Amino acid sequence: MLQHSTRYGISTIVPLPFEQALVRTREALASEGFGVLTEIDVTATLRKKLDVEFRPYIILGACNPPLAYKAVQAEPDIGLLLPCNVVVYAADDPAATIVAALDPVEALSLSGNEAVQPIAEEVRRRLERVVASVGGTQRATSAPSESA
Amino acid sequence: MLQHSTRYGISTIVPLPFEQALVRTREALASEGFGVLTEIDVTATLRKKLDVEFRPYIILGACNPPLAYKAVQAEPDIGLLLPCNVVVYAADDPAATIVAALDPVEALSLSGNEAVQPIAEEVRRRLERVVASVGGTQRATSAPSESA
Repeated sequence: MLQHSTRYGISTIVPLPFEQALVRTREALASEGFGVLTEIDVTATLRKKLDVEFRPYIILGACNPPLAYKAVQAEPDIGLLLPCNVVVYAADDPAATIVAALDPVEALSLSGNEAVQPIAEEVRRRLERVVASVGGTQRATSAPSESA
Repeated sequence: MLQHSTRYGISTIVPLPFEQALVRTREALASEGFGVLTEIDVTATLRKKLDVEFRPYIILGACNPPLAYKAVQAEPDIGLLLPCNVVVYAADDPAATIVAALDPVEALSLSGNEAVQPIAEEVRRRLERVVASVGGTQRATSAPSESA
C-alpha cells in the first residue's frame, strides 16, 4: 500500500523512527541473502566534511555474492554499478522513515549487456521483498516482521 | 589515446601492475577533491563468500562532499546513486590495469531530476581528469603523474 516505485527505486514509508527502521532493513536484507558490504553515514560525513546538519541518512551497499559473481563474469565493468544501494532516511515526520532500494534492472540496464538482465531481475525480486517486508506489507522469508 | 568511454563509464588501460595503478588512482581522486568513502575488495569478498578465485578487483566509492550535499538537497533519493564508483582491476596482461569511473551523467540521469544534471556534469569533468591523469595522458592538478 505504502510501497511505490520511483523511476529508479523501490521505496516505502515505514511508520517507525529511523533507528528501528534501520534495524528492520538490515534484517530484511539478510533474510534475502544480501550482505551489507559498505555503509555510509551521510549525516556524519556531511557534518565532518562540511560542518552542516542533515537528516539521519544511511546508504547501505547490499550485495548478494553469487549474483554479483555472475554479473562480474558476464561484464567486467559491472562493478561500476555494484553494490546495490539501499537508503534509509528520516522522513519529515520523526515517527516515519523512508526506505528505498535502487532498482537494479534500471541501474544495470545502463550496461547495455543483455546477459546481465536476468541477474538484475532476480536481484529486483529480492529487493522488492525486502522493501515490502520493511514496510510491513509482507513477511521476510526468515525474519518475521514485528508489526504492520 | 587509451582513454575511452563505454556506455556508462569513463575508462583507461594503465600500463602498470594493479597495485601501482591503485595507488595512482587514489592520488588522482584526492587531487580532484574526491574522498573514498567505501572500498570493496571484490577478490577477497568472492574468496571469502564463495571460495572462488577472481582477478584483483577493487571498487572505490568516490565522493566530493560539497557536490554530494547539493545533490541530496535537490533530490533526497539520490543516495541510491551515490557515491560514484571507480573500479580498478587487473587486465589479462599482468603488466596492465583497467581503471574506470562510472559516468555520473548517465547514472544520475536515472533520477529524471533536472536539478541534478549540472552537478553530475561537474562530477563528470572531474572524473574525466582523474581517468586521464591515471592513464598518463594528463597531469592531475596536484599529483604529477610519473610516466606515460
